[in-house]
Amino acid sequence: MDFLSDFFIRFVAKLQSPTLGFLIGGMFIAAFNSRLQIPDAIYKFIVFMLLIKVGLSGGIAIRNANLTEMLLPAAFAVVVGIIIVFIGRYTLAKLPNVKPLDGIATAGLFGAVSGSTLAAALTLMETEGIQYEAWAAALYPFMDIPALVTAIVLASIYASKQSGTAGKRVRIWPIVKDSLQGAALSALLLGIALGLITKPESVYESFYNPLFRGLLSILMLVMGMEAWARISELRKVAQWYALYALVAPLLHGFIAFGFGVIAHYTTGFSYGGVVILAVIAASSSDISGPPTLRAGIPAANPSAYVGSSTAVGTPIALALGIPLYMGLAQSLMGG
Amino acid sequence: MDFLSDFFIRFVAKLQSPTLGFLIGGMFIAAFNSRLQIPDAIYKFIVFMLLIKVGLSGGIAIRNANLTEMLLPAAFAVVVGIIIVFIGRYTLAKLPNVKPLDGIATAGLFGAVSGSTLAAALTLMETEGIQYEAWAAALYPFMDIPALVTAIVLASIYASKQSGTAGKRVRIWPIVKDSLQGAALSALLLGIALGLITKPESVYESFYNPLFRGLLSILMLVMGMEAWARISELRKVAQWYALYALVAPLLHGFIAFGFGVIAHYTTGFSYGGVVILAVIAASSSDISGPPTLRAGIPAANPSAYVGSSTAVGTPIALALGIPLYMGLAQSLMGG
Amino acid sequence: MDFLSDFFIRFVAKLQSPTLGFLIGGMFIAAFNSRLQIPDAIYKFIVFMLLIKVGLSGGIAIRNANLTEMLLPAAFAVVVGIIIVFIGRYTLAKLPNVKPLDGIATAGLFGAVSGSTLAAALTLMETEGIQYEAWAAALYPFMDIPALVTAIVLASIYASKQSGTAGKRVRIWPIVKDSLQGAALSALLLGIALGLITKPESVYESFYNPLFRGLLSILMLVMGMEAWARISELRKVAQWYALYALVAPLLHGFIAFGFGVIAHYTTGFSYGGVVILAVIAASSSDISGPPTLRAGIPAANPSAYVGSSTAVGTPIALALGIPLYMGLAQSLMGG
Repeated sequence: MDFLSDFFIRFVAKLQSPTLGFLIGGMFIAAFNSRLQIPDAIYKFIVFMLLIKVGLSGGIAIRNANLTEMLLPAAFAVVVGIIIVFIGRYTLAKLPNVKPLDGIATAGLFGAVSGSTLAAALTLMETEGIQYEAWAAALYPFMDIPALVTAIVLASIYASKQSGTAGKRVRIWPIVKDSLQGAALSALLLGIALGLITKPESVYESFYNPLFRGLLSILMLVMGMEAWARISELRKVAQWYALYALVAPLLHGFIAFGFGVIAHYTTGFSYGGVVILAVIAASSSDISGPPTLRAGIPAANPSAYVGSSTAVGTPIALALGIPLYMGLAQSLMGG
Repeated sequence: MDFLSDFFIRFVAKLQSPTLGFLIGGMFIAAFNSRLQIPDAIYKFIVFMLLIKVGLSGGIAIRNANLTEMLLPAAFAVVVGIIIVFIGRYTLAKLPNVKPLDGIATAGLFGAVSGSTLAAALTLMETEGIQYEAWAAALYPFMDIPALVTAIVLASIYASKQSGTAGKRVRIWPIVKDSLQGAALSALLLGIALGLITKPESVYESFYNPLFRGLLSILMLVMGMEAWARISELRKVAQWYALYALVAPLLHGFIAFGFGVIAHYTTGFSYGGVVILAVIAASSSDISGPPTLRAGIPAANPSAYVGSSTAVGTPIALALGIPLYMGLAQSLMGG
Repeated sequence: MDFLSDFFIRFVAKLQSPTLGFLIGGMFIAAFNSRLQIPDAIYKFIVFMLLIKVGLSGGIAIRNANLTEMLLPAAFAVVVGIIIVFIGRYTLAKLPNVKPLDGIATAGLFGAVSGSTLAAALTLMETEGIQYEAWAAALYPFMDIPALVTAIVLASIYASKQSGTAGKRVRIWPIVKDSLQGAALSALLLGIALGLITKPESVYESFYNPLFRGLLSILMLVMGMEAWARISELRKVAQWYALYALVAPLLHGFIAFGFGVIAHYTTGFSYGGVVILAVIAASSSDISGPPTLRAGIPAANPSAYVGSSTAVGTPIALALGIPLYMGLAQSLMGG
């Protein structure tokens, strides 16, 4: 009970944090049909800035880290990414009025990772003083890519069975490559590489780090506006998508949290890292995932998966998931 | 005489301030047909950043303020906004070669408020150390909306009389709503709401506040370029518009200054606040006003009102109005 | 030998500097066909920010400087700009399979100056603590404009001879004006003017200067991506362009370095200033030059000159030229 009442206090406090305030503000702005818009060029640039910053700090950390520590969490990230897609395959994609390919694609998007959600979690954790391994942000691709690959492979298997051409092999590398070519993952990996190889500390401290929190607040505004705008798309598809998008982020986060706790007890993975693993699992891809899925599962309807993720999944992960996992970690750390 | 010589010294000093230097620099750049351009996405983003910053600081101030202080200045802002439009209705709109609807729309735009001019005034006042109530920037909508509503109502009355359909009611709420939906007012009100409800101090101090002055300098550059580009539009309409645009900003500012002084003696409104009230009155809307007027008075010619405001009214308010009201306030404070 | 081994150590260290790291990172990103892109509006804005910053600091410096010091370096900048074009005219433009007009235009672009390369050099020099006259950045137009004018005049003479209309005068002022109207030079000169006339120190210190290094890192990323993308264009034209683009930047830089050393011994021009003169000569114009050349030598093929400059000339100047001239200056300063 203590945990629950703590959680509610924390939840209300989080809604007062500017990060979530901007998200909700964006929804109001969109609901009011305001002509206020953040130009697309600015939006793309902000995403780039946030992910290269996360990458740079990760790369700098990895340079000074004992990487064997990262092995188990990375393996768990892969496992969780695959599990998430299988859960969607055997729940959402089996439901009446849900086309199996649409359901599989949606599951793939919910297994993939949102850099913006990750950035928001990192900011909130810093505000609360929760420590984490700086390389933990680099777990992103270890969950993102396997989830997208799994979804595309499952979709291909399904499609082959339908058309009676079973046995046709799905080629994995093009999916991995397409995923790595996405703007979000490219920026993150570029940041990691530059952090590892060059010495970007001065430009990081004078530019990327100080701008991070402010740019994130604007990104949250855009995501709120976008979430509201996509709700109408969601209405066009079966109600099951809305239910899945409500439940799945929290469920996925708890699964990853469980794996994270195992890593905590076996290799000393920090509770902050556990929260990051959970947030990565709870998040659903909003930028890099959709183009890969569109190429990999062309028969699936983008309104289904983009609507579910942007309009419901991301706000749930941000406004409920992050405070929930942070609260859980703080309870466990205190205990 | 002392005041006048003081004013001239102050005026020359102000032209040396980078804020006005960038404005004049923009005019030179445009006059020289340079290919230098600030991309539109950047311009829109800068306006957003400035207004959300003004809003945030207002909202934070209101959270800790005794709002009854704001009542009289807010009422005066409404009154001045309406007076300005009536002045234009019975001067400019009555002149030969001026179409009444064009004149009324122009008066509406000069009653409405420019967020950029307000931002410039706030910067210059901080430089000079003139104190003001932080909620004073929140007077903006109290003048902006009544002015636009009055203009559209007067235009509608005029049009009904012409077509003999007098008695048709003008609906006020759609005009108010359209005005609130404008990008500038939306950003300002969003900032106020976030400043009131969330605790944005850390992101405000680390991001919005430090970038304010620099972004304003770029905005001034764009406004200078824009002012020069619009002068040709102004030439197409009657010369009376140029005369009105030269005289009106200073006159409107003095009227508001007078009301402000009344508030100073009755409720202790600061002289800095009086300057802000005067600047709000002297400014004419450049971003949010035109779309509302276009929708509300579709028969009016946008070249008339946009040209008058952007090419003459705004530069006059910035380069003459602001130093004038600041100088006047400093004389009165000293006396 | 000492100098050479020093240079190699320095060269490897420079590749670790984030400035060059971002350049090389951009090439990798482009080579990998990533969908990561810096929106064009952001790119243009960054170039504006960097050049106005360089201009402002130059203008502030000139305000407090003894300008007679600048005379000899400025004269040398003009001379080097003209020499570079003549070298190209009598080497590249005479080669088989090279159309003379294409060769002359390419030589003009290599004589013109890249603001981005100059900005990168200033950052690296500050990192290494190499002092220079702040007005040295203002040498830019003294080399840029004469080089473009010379190229267009030589092209016009060649074309007149071909068509037998020799004796037709080429008008110089339109070329100079077109060059000054370019976005890069306009921003630089605007910055110089504002630095000279207004007092922009506060906005410079709070905004333009702190953002410089970070924005430069992003610009380097874009230039790396652009360089890779243009290599295919270069392949379409004769191989001689690639050879010229490899050799010319370093050669031009050494010629300018020599003139700079003369100025050092005669008027006390700093070695830092000598490096800047060399970098200005080594750089080739990427933003402002091409439109002027397209207007001035319409018969020349832009793929030839833009490809040579962007894909080879600029990376060579950045990654080899800058460390080379800095190392040379440091050896001479130490000796």
